[in-house]
Amino acid sequence: MKTAAVVGVGLIGGSLALALKRLGVAECVWGVENSEKHAAKAVELGLVDEIVSLDKASAEAGLIVVATPVNTAPTIVTKLLNKAPADQVIIDVGSTKQELCELVSMHRHRGRFVATHPMWGTEHSGPEAAQREAFAGRAVVICERERSDADAVEKIEELYRALGMKLIYMSAEEHDLHTAYVSHISHITSFALALTVLEKEREEEHIFDLAGGGFESTVRLAKSSASTWIPILLENKYNVLDVLREHIHQLQIMRRMIERDDEVGLRDMMDKANTIKRILK
Amino acid sequence: MKTAAVVGVGLIGGSLALALKRLGVAECVWGVENSEKHAAKAVELGLVDEIVSLDKASAEAGLIVVATPVNTAPTIVTKLLNKAPADQVIIDVGSTKQELCELVSMHRHRGRFVATHPMWGTEHSGPEAAQREAFAGRAVVICERERSDADAVEKIEELYRALGMKLIYMSAEEHDLHTAYVSHISHITSFALALTVLEKEREEEHIFDLAGGGFESTVRLAKSSASTWIPILLENKYNVLDVLREHIHQLQIMRRMIERDDEVGLRDMMDKANTIKRILK
Repeated sequence: MKTAAVVGVGLIGGSLALALKRLGVAECVWGVENSEKHAAKAVELGLVDEIVSLDKASAEAGLIVVATPVNTAPTIVTKLLNKAPADQVIIDVGSTKQELCELVSMHRHRGRFVATHPMWGTEHSGPEAAQREAFAGRAVVICERERSDADAVEKIEELYRALGMKLIYMSAEEHDLHTAYVSHISHITSFALALTVLEKEREEEHIFDLAGGGFESTVRLAKSSASTWIPILLENKYNVLDVLREHIHQLQIMRRMIERDDEVGLRDMMDKANTIKRILK
Repeated sequence: MKTAAVVGVGLIGGSLALALKRLGVAECVWGVENSEKHAAKAVELGLVDEIVSLDKASAEAGLIVVATPVNTAPTIVTKLLNKAPADQVIIDVGSTKQELCELVSMHRHRGRFVATHPMWGTEHSGPEAAQREAFAGRAVVICERERSDADAVEKIEELYRALGMKLIYMSAEEHDLHTAYVSHISHITSFALALTVLEKEREEEHIFDLAGGGFESTVRLAKSSASTWIPILLENKYNVLDVLREHIHQLQIMRRMIERDDEVGLRDMMDKANTIKRILK
């Protein structure tokens, strides 16, 4: 392929741009980027060869990766599909899938689009956060595989396999349900935990010194960007609220047990929570 | 020193035993351990040279480290102080300090005891979890320094400095307040998060595959041992409940904002939560 383009050159888009070059998928990688600051930084860091307009990318790139916040992705994907040359492949890499997949479902060129979600990320954002060795060893979810053209799916599966990722297939509904459990809720608790501590603990020096006690890992995600996460939580509102209600319920049960010195109840809960070992490495 | 003894040869006790040998603090390190299985394992792994009775350790060791759950430490420290030879030093390494410091406060040999809390740990427990390169770069809190004999404090400070730890001084009350914020609450949220996901997510295969999305780091502490954590939460009940109430409150605010699509409110909360960056590395 002569040219690939990445729309939104931040943490995920920037890391994918680096990967496209490294794997030799495209001779040239373009970036499309609204923020002038991010655009300049992406070129300076060598994430992309050049910044171009969305129109130019749409007309000339063989592969286009849409890596913008999930509230803007549907419009961008639709505009790209409207003008997609017959051999172009368009993918997104967003954290919610139902809204996007529904919006493009009846598009005449739906087949040129592959809905994907590589399950990799960090709490950092912007082009500076892009990493050269991202994605390897993680899963990538491909949604509604059967609605994409066979050649498009094949090309994208080959790309993710070359990145060392495990391919998983789900409907968009399933995807949004499972990611609410294993990703979105973790971000909410981290944000809330950071706020709790900032609210209650006035002596910041002590947070810093004592953070070895487990705080750092549970609060890491609270550094994540609002521009990325507000659209995710609102687009996946139904699932997120369902999991959040259950989480608050579990915390209230633990609170009552601590109030009542209920050692037996606490032991049951912790022993059950420990079984998460079985599932995680 | 000829001999040091570690009472409770688990994650922390075992790691300290290894450190005592490595630093050459004692020629010989004894273990005192109730569990026969842990005792055998500690010897097999070379954490301690020999398992002895508490009485023998009390009579002959120059330094005794009490590394048992926080509900048993006060009794053990008191028994050791009752018979402490004039040049013996006794320390504990537990995660709560108020109860213990209060109980020994009027002991005739109070000066031989140094209350310490090295802020290092992992979610694993037992002698197999002990690590050779633990503690370095972390903080260690010494409580009520002024109530310990000068020679005892000096010896212990030298030990922790040799381990590469940063010494911090607090009253027992301050210690329990700050650790509720930066350690105890993180464990509660992790336990509750694991239970939420286990409760709602029946498809365990998906948890495993998708855990790259942030879940693993926030839920890591849910693997922690109930025998360690129930006594900590109950001994520090007043502070823990205070922080837990605030945390549930923050989650309820976020829930209402998501329900109402309140983007401005969510952005304010997340931007504020982001300031935790300033405090953590």
